[in-house]
Amino acid sequence: MTPDGVATQKINFSILLFVSLLCGLIFDQDDVIAPETERNSEIQSCFPDMCNLLKEFGAMRDKLGVMENKLKDSENQILELKNKDTTKVILTAAVGSKGAMGPFNTDTTLIYRAVKTNIGNTYSPYTGIFTAPVAGVYYFTIFYHAGGSHQAKLYLYKNNEMMVRAQDHWSVFDTADNGGNAVFLQLQQGDQVYVRMAANSHVWGYDYDTTFSGFLVTQM
Amino acid sequence: MTPDGVATQKINFSILLFVSLLCGLIFDQDDVIAPETERNSEIQSCFPDMCNLLKEFGAMRDKLGVMENKLKDSENQILELKNKDTTKVILTAAVGSKGAMGPFNTDTTLIYRAVKTNIGNTYSPYTGIFTAPVAGVYYFTIFYHAGGSHQAKLYLYKNNEMMVRAQDHWSVFDTADNGGNAVFLQLQQGDQVYVRMAANSHVWGYDYDTTFSGFLVTQM
Amino acid sequence: MTPDGVATQKINFSILLFVSLLCGLIFDQDDVIAPETERNSEIQSCFPDMCNLLKEFGAMRDKLGVMENKLKDSENQILELKNKDTTKVILTAAVGSKGAMGPFNTDTTLIYRAVKTNIGNTYSPYTGIFTAPVAGVYYFTIFYHAGGSHQAKLYLYKNNEMMVRAQDHWSVFDTADNGGNAVFLQLQQGDQVYVRMAANSHVWGYDYDTTFSGFLVTQM
Repeated sequence: MTPDGVATQKINFSILLFVSLLCGLIFDQDDVIAPETERNSEIQSCFPDMCNLLKEFGAMRDKLGVMENKLKDSENQILELKNKDTTKVILTAAVGSKGAMGPFNTDTTLIYRAVKTNIGNTYSPYTGIFTAPVAGVYYFTIFYHAGGSHQAKLYLYKNNEMMVRAQDHWSVFDTADNGGNAVFLQLQQGDQVYVRMAANSHVWGYDYDTTFSGFLVTQM
Repeated sequence: MTPDGVATQKINFSILLFVSLLCGLIFDQDDVIAPETERNSEIQSCFPDMCNLLKEFGAMRDKLGVMENKLKDSENQILELKNKDTTKVILTAAVGSKGAMGPFNTDTTLIYRAVKTNIGNTYSPYTGIFTAPVAGVYYFTIFYHAGGSHQAKLYLYKNNEMMVRAQDHWSVFDTADNGGNAVFLQLQQGDQVYVRMAANSHVWGYDYDTTFSGFLVTQM
Repeated sequence: MTPDGVATQKINFSILLFVSLLCGLIFDQDDVIAPETERNSEIQSCFPDMCNLLKEFGAMRDKLGVMENKLKDSENQILELKNKDTTKVILTAAVGSKGAMGPFNTDTTLIYRAVKTNIGNTYSPYTGIFTAPVAGVYYFTIFYHAGGSHQAKLYLYKNNEMMVRAQDHWSVFDTADNGGNAVFLQLQQGDQVYVRMAANSHVWGYDYDTTFSGFLVTQM
């Protein structure tokens, strides 16, 4: 072999030694820096950093993966929280007629035409019907004012079932009266709530006296 | 050239070859590990890891940047959620006088002096005025008890506009009566709500009978 | 020394020089790429990337640590938000007797047996007692219907303290009457709220007329 060939071989051998040393440091299971040798003392300040680098890089990549999943999970939870209880349902309407409403010779749905608040547009002032847009617990309260010449008799219905009632007897001696009631009702989406006025009863109608109010307390 | 010079040149050349090989591996667009050569077989276990390292490092840095932005966005959304609906406004007060309040020969603001709850300090028991601290929808309800010798007539006002009313006629025969009403009102910050007692009407005053209550249902 | 020995020494020296150069680049406080030398021009395309790599790697590791803490903090805040205001308390019950309840010759707790809603199971239809499961502000409202032959007189109590009252006088001439009241109360966990019916008074009992309702407005 020529001197050149020997020199090249020697380079290869040195690089191989160097690489073996480097790989030995990388795959060394202990975190202890490899013992210093005469050759290592020259390369220790730099290549051991690179060996640890490879180790640490793997660990960092794993940690980044874990954090990415946790971040995604947090983003989903934030979205859930933002969407929770965002439906607003709040209404007040008064009967709005000019004077007495009724008496009629049959039960009728009392239509509160003078809307004061109708957030969520869940109440129709044309039919007097409230329709639940989402499942949840709702609060309803009715108040009436009525002259004494006829009975006042209001029923609050959920679908086909009476829930609460507000009524008074007529009296020659008591020329006006008031009454009311309130109820919390668990409703499904689409359930309807409305007020029926009994046959032969009446209420006082203007924009301020006989009212129907409600709101969505909580979705569930 | 001397043998030393030739050897040095050979070292440079070998390092250059080695570096070219390394750079070739780094900038190789395919993710396929470069074909094994006799020289590579010695260095493959270590330097290809480092070449991929450079590639992956760039990718990881980009990913970290993306995650940093997403994390910042999440932090902002959490702050929004924490600040949402944190204003609490809840009040109940009773008239608190010893016996009848009124009748007066003019309309007056009914001052409910006996405060039972005033979360948010939005109601003044000195003036009887509630002031909305934030825009939103509020619920108000009034109840009165009154002796029969005079009419009872209460109006709930928002600023200069009557919203609902509770009233009864006087009657020799009915020595006491009750009434009330409720309303949900959308208010702007600074809007004022209060109860006016009509001239020549009265209510019963103690700490328990004639009340004014309200709360902020939702900010909007 | 033999030519081989000299060559090996020259390799070591070259590697040492190379390493020193590399470490010099790494620990160079400026971000300026080290001036090009004849040797550098061969290695610049690759190893300077690796030197910057070590610098950047340290910075990235620090950044990852900061982000990990921020992510943990966000996760805790999300958990707080999810747990906030999750207690639901909503109730309505009617007296439910068939006809008049009372009069009795002593004050009694009015037991509303016909439960319509009892979210949170905080109201007992056996005792008529509501018990606050958490500290907060609660809303209560009562309505009664009563015949005119006896007085109607209801007191709403918090523990041993009357909060509001609803009453009417009896009247031969007024054969029925209505009344009610409402109050927002700040309660501690375990506080009890209930309705007392005064001695010698009565209310009308069915499932629809005389009611007791309440809900938790906000925990605090």
